[in-house]
Amino acid sequence: MNTPTATEAQAVVEQVRQEVCALHAELVRYGLVVWTAGNVSGRVPGQDLFVIKPSGVGYDELTPASIVVCDLDGNLVDGELAPSSDTAAHAYVYRHRPDVGGVVHTHSTYASAWAARGEAIPCVLTAMADEFGGEIPVGPFALIGDDSIGRGIVETLEGHRSSAVLMRSHGVFSIGKNARAAVKAAVMCEDVARTVHIARQLGDPVAIPQSDVDRLYDRYQNVYGQGDTERPHGSTA
Amino acid sequence: MNTPTATEAQAVVEQVRQEVCALHAELVRYGLVVWTAGNVSGRVPGQDLFVIKPSGVGYDELTPASIVVCDLDGNLVDGELAPSSDTAAHAYVYRHRPDVGGVVHTHSTYASAWAARGEAIPCVLTAMADEFGGEIPVGPFALIGDDSIGRGIVETLEGHRSSAVLMRSHGVFSIGKNARAAVKAAVMCEDVARTVHIARQLGDPVAIPQSDVDRLYDRYQNVYGQGDTERPHGSTA
Amino acid sequence: MNTPTATEAQAVVEQVRQEVCALHAELVRYGLVVWTAGNVSGRVPGQDLFVIKPSGVGYDELTPASIVVCDLDGNLVDGELAPSSDTAAHAYVYRHRPDVGGVVHTHSTYASAWAARGEAIPCVLTAMADEFGGEIPVGPFALIGDDSIGRGIVETLEGHRSSAVLMRSHGVFSIGKNARAAVKAAVMCEDVARTVHIARQLGDPVAIPQSDVDRLYDRYQNVYGQGDTERPHGSTA
Amino acid sequence: MNTPTATEAQAVVEQVRQEVCALHAELVRYGLVVWTAGNVSGRVPGQDLFVIKPSGVGYDELTPASIVVCDLDGNLVDGELAPSSDTAAHAYVYRHRPDVGGVVHTHSTYASAWAARGEAIPCVLTAMADEFGGEIPVGPFALIGDDSIGRGIVETLEGHRSSAVLMRSHGVFSIGKNARAAVKAAVMCEDVARTVHIARQLGDPVAIPQSDVDRLYDRYQNVYGQGDTERPHGSTA
Repeated sequence: MNTPTATEAQAVVEQVRQEVCALHAELVRYGLVVWTAGNVSGRVPGQDLFVIKPSGVGYDELTPASIVVCDLDGNLVDGELAPSSDTAAHAYVYRHRPDVGGVVHTHSTYASAWAARGEAIPCVLTAMADEFGGEIPVGPFALIGDDSIGRGIVETLEGHRSSAVLMRSHGVFSIGKNARAAVKAAVMCEDVARTVHIARQLGDPVAIPQSDVDRLYDRYQNVYGQGDTERPHGSTA
Repeated sequence: MNTPTATEAQAVVEQVRQEVCALHAELVRYGLVVWTAGNVSGRVPGQDLFVIKPSGVGYDELTPASIVVCDLDGNLVDGELAPSSDTAAHAYVYRHRPDVGGVVHTHSTYASAWAARGEAIPCVLTAMADEFGGEIPVGPFALIGDDSIGRGIVETLEGHRSSAVLMRSHGVFSIGKNARAAVKAAVMCEDVARTVHIARQLGDPVAIPQSDVDRLYDRYQNVYGQGDTERPHGSTA
Repeated sequence: MNTPTATEAQAVVEQVRQEVCALHAELVRYGLVVWTAGNVSGRVPGQDLFVIKPSGVGYDELTPASIVVCDLDGNLVDGELAPSSDTAAHAYVYRHRPDVGGVVHTHSTYASAWAARGEAIPCVLTAMADEFGGEIPVGPFALIGDDSIGRGIVETLEGHRSSAVLMRSHGVFSIGKNARAAVKAAVMCEDVARTVHIARQLGDPVAIPQSDVDRLYDRYQNVYGQGDTERPHGSTA
Repeated sequence: MNTPTATEAQAVVEQVRQEVCALHAELVRYGLVVWTAGNVSGRVPGQDLFVIKPSGVGYDELTPASIVVCDLDGNLVDGELAPSSDTAAHAYVYRHRPDVGGVVHTHSTYASAWAARGEAIPCVLTAMADEFGGEIPVGPFALIGDDSIGRGIVETLEGHRSSAVLMRSHGVFSIGKNARAAVKAAVMCEDVARTVHIARQLGDPVAIPQSDVDRLYDRYQNVYGQGDTERPHGSTA
């Protein structure tokens, strides 16, 4: 594979900008965000860059051009607006998890409620076994401003199948092989957080044996959907 | 009645494809699904076929042409995409319940919460007596991959008036004489699951005597609506 | 005032048909109904008639022409579809309450949850004092098919300021001087049913002294809004 | 700075009318209001005036021209409709808080539920520390009709960082340096009211140490967003 030209490299950046811009609409559609409190980022394939939402900009106003480009230390490389205040956390994840191509952060209601109690969401739904392969774990309480949040995400997800982590007293971070997969994880995280919460309100959900969780997770990760290469543009994982 | 020509038979398939495609929008409208987690199927009248949502495709992207056609063993007969991963369960229902013309599967929130506790929804609302004729029962925990789910649906609904079943730790399957009726049952199931849950949060709903449940069910099934033959295009059951 | 000509009388009917048709969209907008389970009716001024939703027709399909006209015994007078299955209850209210010009019926979630427990909604919000002047009472359990529901509505609302009644194990009926006012009462009923439910989940709402409820009710009924004659077309009560 | 001409002064009024008119759509978008029960006002910079929603008018019908202009005693100065019945409370805030440029009032569900119990919302989420700098306090029960509500708002917010107050048995008032900031506070208030309520339903949220609340509040108020002067038109604080 030849080194891409500068023009080719720029075209890849613009494509990820478009994808990440469009994916913010999914956060709105599924009610995961209010005002400007949530963001999506996506790694630029083949370059030590990622793109992310600018800080304090409403979802209706986002355009691909307003999405900013950062290096893996979170420094602004291209764009007219300041990057999301959560950029350092996204950057930390990209630096330490080369397999991760997308990161999403929200304060979605039910997941944040579990996070406020510092309680992991138990795996009591087959859809949760499919997507997360077990419980959705709780990360530490961490203040914004240094690497604490990013480190909390990475350390908590080590040794977990889960693609989402509940950061204590804060909200959710989710990861995926690309930005779309990370958005899907954020959507599914809120969905199971809500259903399990409601189930718990009137009693105890029945546990699913670990061996069944394992079987469901394995099948879903390997069989579900249309297959990566065949999948039509825009379809889901 | 003459045997239809191949062209006529194909026209019937295309019509059911259109109906089933359009009905997925009702799942979205009533908030029964997120991402791609829910599907509608419809039997092709006069042919040993049914049509169903393709796997892992978003609701916005569905077109009649993307809806796939399967035989009653769940094998793909026509279509470019892989059938829903729930196809075997739908197929089992069509094979064992010749009266069923539509099947719907969702993980709708409140119904799935009852399913997570393995608890039937008691019949404490007149609308529930009308539509379901009693409680909405719980089916077994069953893994995807063989006939377990389909058999659980069929066996649980035997001896029940209910057109919906809560599959334990999983979600809802509903049935109807056609796809529209099955979608209506899915919508009403979530509606009563939610109302009864909320009623239960602050105390005990008052029971409805069985004789009154019987009277309501009988009346609704036989009197309500505009009558099958007169009903204008697109109206509800 | 001269007796209107037949043409003038028909024009009035058509206007009420249009208003009642359009008001169903408010039930949808505020999430008070699913599928076809809710209806609005409006008295025809100066004629012993009212108009009401046809039975089993979806809200998207309603047109002014599809709205049916009934006499005050609930008999179909004009229209191609069967009247709502709740027509007898609406008719009973119009016959016994000449001051009522609009009736609404829904199974809205939170109000129906109070109804399922047979529990009145206590007046613990100033907005509830404004609109309902006290608690929202519970009417009897009554089967559809005769005058039981209508009589239950009328008898329960006697001696109450409330413009809404929770029919036990069933849902809500609301009344107003016209169809718009009855729809507003249905919307506000669900809103306060929800807020008071949520307040009660974590403790006891503080009671509002009856003298303050009286003062709020009196003020709101007599001072609020733009005045009846000045009110611009389409504005609310 | 020269005294503006009458034409210039009028142009400023029209601009605030437009902004305040448009901001009501945010109350609808985030589900903070039903029917006509909520209002936004904005101070006219450089003039002893503010603009506010007319009374009893639906959100769909609002136009900039329908927004009324009042002096700081709440008297109607310009406009064809009667001002909101909450105008006296808004006026009181503008008279006593020269730093306030916008006021919002809603009966948003979760915040009003805390208000019905007379219970402050504890600061157990980082987003709440960011925006409110601590708990959201409860103001007194106050009847409409004199300065009681306005005085309750101003006295309760003295000595609080919070930009929102829960008026007991009533609803929420929020303030900001302009109308947009007050709307943001109303949106965030309902968001945290909901999340903390849900967290509390299944246990006790973990407290955030006051020193961390202080650090988060200080950072968010001073660092977040694009900076006031650089911020593109329409973007959020």
